[in-house]
Amino acid sequence: MNARLFAFCGGVAGPWRVTRMSAIVGDGLPAVRRIAITPGTVDPSNEGTGWVLRGIMSNERYVQRDEKDRLLEKQEGLGRVESTCAALIPIRKNASWWALTQDERRRIIEEQSRHIRIGLEYLPAIARRLHHCRDLSENEPFDFLTWFEFAPAHEADFNRLLVELRASLEWTYVDREVDVRLIRD
Amino acid sequence: MNARLFAFCGGVAGPWRVTRMSAIVGDGLPAVRRIAITPGTVDPSNEGTGWVLRGIMSNERYVQRDEKDRLLEKQEGLGRVESTCAALIPIRKNASWWALTQDERRRIIEEQSRHIRIGLEYLPAIARRLHHCRDLSENEPFDFLTWFEFAPAHEADFNRLLVELRASLEWTYVDREVDVRLIRD
Repeated sequence: MNARLFAFCGGVAGPWRVTRMSAIVGDGLPAVRRIAITPGTVDPSNEGTGWVLRGIMSNERYVQRDEKDRLLEKQEGLGRVESTCAALIPIRKNASWWALTQDERRRIIEEQSRHIRIGLEYLPAIARRLHHCRDLSENEPFDFLTWFEFAPAHEADFNRLLVELRASLEWTYVDREVDVRLIRD
Repeated sequence: MNARLFAFCGGVAGPWRVTRMSAIVGDGLPAVRRIAITPGTVDPSNEGTGWVLRGIMSNERYVQRDEKDRLLEKQEGLGRVESTCAALIPIRKNASWWALTQDERRRIIEEQSRHIRIGLEYLPAIARRLHHCRDLSENEPFDFLTWFEFAPAHEADFNRLLVELRASLEWTYVDREVDVRLIRD
C-alpha cells in the first residue's frame, strides 16, 4: 500500500526552509526554521521539533468524473526538480460547514466558489496534495493540510490562486488558516 | 464538543451480550462474549478485551438536504428502553470503490442501490449510528462500523433490511463484512 498518512514536522530539520509564516485567520503556529515531511506517524517529542501536523490522503469528496479526468490529464506530481518553492496551508472550517449536507457543500465548493476549476487553471505549474485531518481524531487543530509545490517563476500565480480562493463563498466557512512559505535548499 | 470517536471493545465486559457472530464476507472476528461501547480512545491491552474497533462519527458523505430532512423527521435516537436488540456490522470496501469519484459513488449508493431510501423505510424502528474508520489511520481493519438498535419485535425487519442492502450493487464492493448480534441484559 502506498503511504497515505503524512506528518509535517516543523522544527530545525528537513529539506524545506521556512521563509514566511502568516496567520491568515485565527491562531497561527509557533515559528519554526524548517519542515520535514515524513510518511506515517512521528513521535512529537523528537528533539528539535516545534510542532507536528498530521494528515491523510483520502478518496475524492467532491470531484466528479469529468473533473477528475481533466485534473489527471493536466497535473504533474510533487518532487519536480524545478519546484523549489512550496507552501503548506493548514485550514479549519467551522461547525456550520460540517453541518451542511453533501449537495449543499458541493454547491458552495464548485458551483459558487469554483474551487476545482480554479485549481485546474493553475495546473500543471502549481502541484498540490491534499491531506485530511478532521477524522484522524476528535481534536485535530486543522481539518485539511494542503501542500503546494511550484517553480520560483510561478510564485505570483500561486499568490493569485490564493486570492481567488480566499475571496470565495467557501472561504467564509474557514475559521483558521495559516500560510507557511518554504524554499528547498 | 459531543463525542464523535467511539471504541467497540469485544471481550467479557459491557452491557451488550453477543448472541451470534457471523463472517459474511472475508475474515471474521475472534469470538467474544460481550461488547462495551466507550467514547474516546481505549487501551487495547485492557484485561479481558479480545479486540477493539474504533470509528468516528463524521459529516454526511452522500445524503442530500431533502433526504436529511426526512431522516431527521423520522429517526429516533439510540438508547430507547425497548431497544434491547442490537447489531454491530463492520464492513470494508475494496480499492475499486475508493478510486471512484464522488458522483460515481453517489450514483451507486442511492440511484442504483437505494441505500438511503432503504434505511428510511425502516425508521424509526431500526435506529442506527454510522462510524467511519478508514481515515483514522492507514491500516484500519474496516472502513465503517454501523451500530443498530431495535426492539425484539423488529428483528425480522432488521434482517430484511440487511437482505436488501446485501443484494445491492453497492455491496459488490464490500470485501469484508462481519455481523455481530447482541442483546442488552
